[in-house]
Amino acid sequence: MALHPDRLFPSDPATRAVARRLYHTIATLPIISPHGHTEPRWYSENAPFPDPATLFVKPDHYIFRMLYSQGISLESLGISRRDGQDVETDSRKIWRIFARHFHLFRGTPTRLWFEQSLEDLFGITERLNEDNADRLYDVIADHLGQDAFRPRALYERFNLEAIATTDSALSDLENHAALRASGWQGRVVPTYRPDFTVDPAREGFAANVAQLTAMTGEAMTWQGYLSAHRQRRAFFISMGATATDHGHPTAQTADLPQTDAAVLFTRIIAGQGSAAEAELFRAQMLTEMARMSIEDGLVMQLHPGSFRNHNPLVFRDFGPDMGADIPSSTDYVRALKPLLDAVGNDPHLTLILFTLDETSYGRELAPLAGHYPCLRLGPPWWFFDSPEGMKRFREIATETAGFANTVGFNDDTRAYLSIPARHDMARRVDCAFLAGLVVQHRLNEDEAQAIAQDLAYNLAKKAYKL
Amino acid sequence: MALHPDRLFPSDPATRAVARRLYHTIATLPIISPHGHTEPRWYSENAPFPDPATLFVKPDHYIFRMLYSQGISLESLGISRRDGQDVETDSRKIWRIFARHFHLFRGTPTRLWFEQSLEDLFGITERLNEDNADRLYDVIADHLGQDAFRPRALYERFNLEAIATTDSALSDLENHAALRASGWQGRVVPTYRPDFTVDPAREGFAANVAQLTAMTGEAMTWQGYLSAHRQRRAFFISMGATATDHGHPTAQTADLPQTDAAVLFTRIIAGQGSAAEAELFRAQMLTEMARMSIEDGLVMQLHPGSFRNHNPLVFRDFGPDMGADIPSSTDYVRALKPLLDAVGNDPHLTLILFTLDETSYGRELAPLAGHYPCLRLGPPWWFFDSPEGMKRFREIATETAGFANTVGFNDDTRAYLSIPARHDMARRVDCAFLAGLVVQHRLNEDEAQAIAQDLAYNLAKKAYKL
Amino acid sequence: MALHPDRLFPSDPATRAVARRLYHTIATLPIISPHGHTEPRWYSENAPFPDPATLFVKPDHYIFRMLYSQGISLESLGISRRDGQDVETDSRKIWRIFARHFHLFRGTPTRLWFEQSLEDLFGITERLNEDNADRLYDVIADHLGQDAFRPRALYERFNLEAIATTDSALSDLENHAALRASGWQGRVVPTYRPDFTVDPAREGFAANVAQLTAMTGEAMTWQGYLSAHRQRRAFFISMGATATDHGHPTAQTADLPQTDAAVLFTRIIAGQGSAAEAELFRAQMLTEMARMSIEDGLVMQLHPGSFRNHNPLVFRDFGPDMGADIPSSTDYVRALKPLLDAVGNDPHLTLILFTLDETSYGRELAPLAGHYPCLRLGPPWWFFDSPEGMKRFREIATETAGFANTVGFNDDTRAYLSIPARHDMARRVDCAFLAGLVVQHRLNEDEAQAIAQDLAYNLAKKAYKL
Repeated sequence: MALHPDRLFPSDPATRAVARRLYHTIATLPIISPHGHTEPRWYSENAPFPDPATLFVKPDHYIFRMLYSQGISLESLGISRRDGQDVETDSRKIWRIFARHFHLFRGTPTRLWFEQSLEDLFGITERLNEDNADRLYDVIADHLGQDAFRPRALYERFNLEAIATTDSALSDLENHAALRASGWQGRVVPTYRPDFTVDPAREGFAANVAQLTAMTGEAMTWQGYLSAHRQRRAFFISMGATATDHGHPTAQTADLPQTDAAVLFTRIIAGQGSAAEAELFRAQMLTEMARMSIEDGLVMQLHPGSFRNHNPLVFRDFGPDMGADIPSSTDYVRALKPLLDAVGNDPHLTLILFTLDETSYGRELAPLAGHYPCLRLGPPWWFFDSPEGMKRFREIATETAGFANTVGFNDDTRAYLSIPARHDMARRVDCAFLAGLVVQHRLNEDEAQAIAQDLAYNLAKKAYKL
Repeated sequence: MALHPDRLFPSDPATRAVARRLYHTIATLPIISPHGHTEPRWYSENAPFPDPATLFVKPDHYIFRMLYSQGISLESLGISRRDGQDVETDSRKIWRIFARHFHLFRGTPTRLWFEQSLEDLFGITERLNEDNADRLYDVIADHLGQDAFRPRALYERFNLEAIATTDSALSDLENHAALRASGWQGRVVPTYRPDFTVDPAREGFAANVAQLTAMTGEAMTWQGYLSAHRQRRAFFISMGATATDHGHPTAQTADLPQTDAAVLFTRIIAGQGSAAEAELFRAQMLTEMARMSIEDGLVMQLHPGSFRNHNPLVFRDFGPDMGADIPSSTDYVRALKPLLDAVGNDPHLTLILFTLDETSYGRELAPLAGHYPCLRLGPPWWFFDSPEGMKRFREIATETAGFANTVGFNDDTRAYLSIPARHDMARRVDCAFLAGLVVQHRLNEDEAQAIAQDLAYNLAKKAYKL
Repeated sequence: MALHPDRLFPSDPATRAVARRLYHTIATLPIISPHGHTEPRWYSENAPFPDPATLFVKPDHYIFRMLYSQGISLESLGISRRDGQDVETDSRKIWRIFARHFHLFRGTPTRLWFEQSLEDLFGITERLNEDNADRLYDVIADHLGQDAFRPRALYERFNLEAIATTDSALSDLENHAALRASGWQGRVVPTYRPDFTVDPAREGFAANVAQLTAMTGEAMTWQGYLSAHRQRRAFFISMGATATDHGHPTAQTADLPQTDAAVLFTRIIAGQGSAAEAELFRAQMLTEMARMSIEDGLVMQLHPGSFRNHNPLVFRDFGPDMGADIPSSTDYVRALKPLLDAVGNDPHLTLILFTLDETSYGRELAPLAGHYPCLRLGPPWWFFDSPEGMKRFREIATETAGFANTVGFNDDTRAYLSIPARHDMARRVDCAFLAGLVVQHRLNEDEAQAIAQDLAYNLAKKAYKL
């Protein structure tokens, strides 16, 4: 199973040769990770990672959703239940279940990320299965105990130049503060994620807003609420943040008169808002956040279109983020118009759009990003962060939006050990795509090389101001 | 025109070599045909098939829709008119029209199925055209008269292991009964298709429900109606059925309180239901059928999204299934939620989803099937049962749902003679896809071989309990 | 940068060899350009084209939208402002901006069209950049001054057999008349585009209708209005027109009773129509135009689904057609039904459908065109008139609709000098697609050759009656 040096490259010899050459020029570039979900605590505490199951299986919804779909209970995988009922606690048993069903991941990116991590980090070149499960468990566990496998050492080993975490607007960023105080040179920056204080449909919304205004000394009014966000953003910026992130059910934006927005805020806070008013409030807040970005320079990211917690049984027993979020059809053309009408031509705004609806690439997103100065296209997200997904994105978006309206790669992961494998996959797939253009004489190889550098490094650094 | 042994394989030599090796290991596996539209009478009566035009042209809506689109009247193809007006009855003349326009099928799967059938069954290696039409007609007609070309002999020649027909819930399954009584060893099983007794928009719905309850001795009440379905399902199971099939305009499901459902049933039967109530009734019945499947073990198939009888002139003159059914945009994420909320985590349910809206593969179906234990993805259906359609399905669905959440191939055909060609096409296209993964080092060849076996045989057998 | 003879062909040697052979048989066929936006005045006046910037940059929304998306002002590109404020008038400076940002077009069809035009017409084999900008400007400017670069000479050099312009229903076609009177043998025909007299949402609609009825001596009534259109269509036919073209926000059609349509007309003209009534009026007019086409033989083209003038700031300052039109989700199955119910089976109608929503290719358009005798599929349009866009169209549409239900290529351009490059791209991409079918043994090479001829020449000539 040892990793093939030409993996993910087309097999046609002419194209493969070009892909290889392109890849060779970018393979070892530093990694910019401008959007992800690693824990700031890891870097500040720099404690060893726990056992293989706790590291690879329990926190990875790509893995346990597939196992669940084939009839394996979440309890048996050690996923905590909200009601405190017992779940499997023996990590070795959890690991064996994963090993026994590892074949389910054939053809998925999870398989590729996992195997590359195992080989690169632990020297494992065997395919995981029921028979070698215990042995590989021990190999991995032994490594994890070593200092070279602590978070900071891995940061350096991974050749990370900067990595962003995603942090609640209410966070005091204590781990980020501790990290900065520690003198360690790694660049770990927070990202302002205000969803829990912006989305009336989230549990505890009113309490969150109360906390937000209280911690900033602002009044619980529309203006106070906006000022509170401004203060929190300034605090995040002081801690290194360069971006915000917004996870919304839809891409709907609004630009209400401020007096109407104030009335809406009052109704929402009083718990009188309908579902439509909650949507309108979220929509309005995207435009407000865009205006704040113009003021303070934070790059704005929009991740819309996930139907969260689709499975009520799983939500009841295990909570959110349990592999039961499902994409749904997402409109951008009409939804973004109020925001774009207000600020779409402002050169100080960068709004990076993501999608879970691939039909929007060609029909909406590439045409929008190929026109509006503020818009950029984020890389393929979530279910589409995969070789075929990345290939489709480039094939569909490039002819209209070019490369300069895209922003390189996001690993978007909490699976820290897979970060190099994820960036490597993106670099390989992009080189394969570019090689295809070269051998079809649609691009010269020197240009493809320049673009490969942009996609692997420059664009992310520039778009995210890192 | 003799069939090329490498047809449908990529031309890149490395990929082709792998595809060939994979295909070689599965080419002669028995055929499982778990969903289709052959006539049970064929097997029970075992009479010779009629002439070439009646066999190949008149019953095949793929063929006559293309001819009609280019200005050829359905009458000239011998399609019966509802008003009894004359249509062409000379099969040879109909065949000549088909031959003269055979070029229209270039680039379509119909062309490939047809030519493979002609070569494999009749030894014909010429391309059909106006000049050889009569001669080929005679060759085919001669063969059809031989015993070796009767339905049962073909079943054996085709290496069929099991084939399912699709049968009205009201059917007495007399041909299935006769077949079982005959002592013949072929396995031909019915499938429970209740649409005509479940969909208030179908002609004769109330009469059908009356017949359903009468034939089971149940009352014409909501509970009697459900019991009648349970009885009929039990009868189908006793005759070998392992599955139900549901052809609905949308994928909408509902889970009303039983008292509300009873009221809705009463209104619908009284002819007082609106179009919205008809939709709600169909939606409710999908959930009821899912619950019955949990009890009795029948695998459930959902085929939604066809706008039936789009052309009123064709419908008036020729009736349904005349090539005028058009796919339309289909939502699954919201539509299936009531059913999934009710029974989506039940390990005893298998619900196989089909689609005519390819945008749902990546956005909705693969994510749903990659999470819910009850869900499986049916193969590309109808317009997408084609080399490019199958390729897109694998490219888009595999990275999220893997292979184990798919169910192998359905030929879904009434064109009995094309069954081996259809399964062969699917096997070839799947091997081509797998070979692509192998040469890109995304999968090892031993794994690809195991998957090829699953896709060609094991998955269908397991998913459909055949 | 000299153009590679194998550009746009797959790199696999077997496929490339077939593509080359196919292309060789069609490369020099005459060009039929049945839909486009060149100016009739160019042909009638036959004046030299102006400088390079005015020719290549200022009128091309593909070019300036990309530049604008990267922060370059439209004023600096010499795009006129509606308020008369100064914009850049120095063509050389505009050209330098374009040259400096030429790298933005990597991977886009604009790049390919531009470079092929430069090499074929001006012998330029350098890649445009900041350093050679002035020199290349001079080379082009020198050529443009020569008689061989005047519109009529280029028509002949381009091997055009016929080219259609697009003309307002209100146009007196004076340039077309002058051209016919001139004795020049080129075939430049008008196309009847009635949008400004059919769409109540367009500025000046009522005045346009008043002008339409006045110029035809008809009453300002529903019947007078329809008669006026009939008269204008007859006039266009007398000037050589063979087609109409309809650019609508949606594909909605309607078939109201004539009395209702008359009432609707009255309300609309009186300015009392709602947005929904405007949509209904446009919808009704598509069916009326289809009926007129059955009478007078004009081929009907429908271009729906563009959200026009999405950016209000750009619209206010620069007007329409400024690169701010964005595709949106488009339904055909339900939208076209009223028209198809009325006239869909009439052999005298040809309705060519275009789309900006690629999801409709497989789900709606190919199934519709593969059934209805009147329907044909137009080539990939606008954002999808590109190598990948054309490839997707063939891959998705062919298996259901075949080739005969498509109509060859439209260059759809006002960039006259790019016409040969655009047709060449389409021919190459089609040959590449056909070669893929041949090497996969899905089509014989003699058939592929016949189809290549159809796609490059015959189908356009036949469908558009040119």
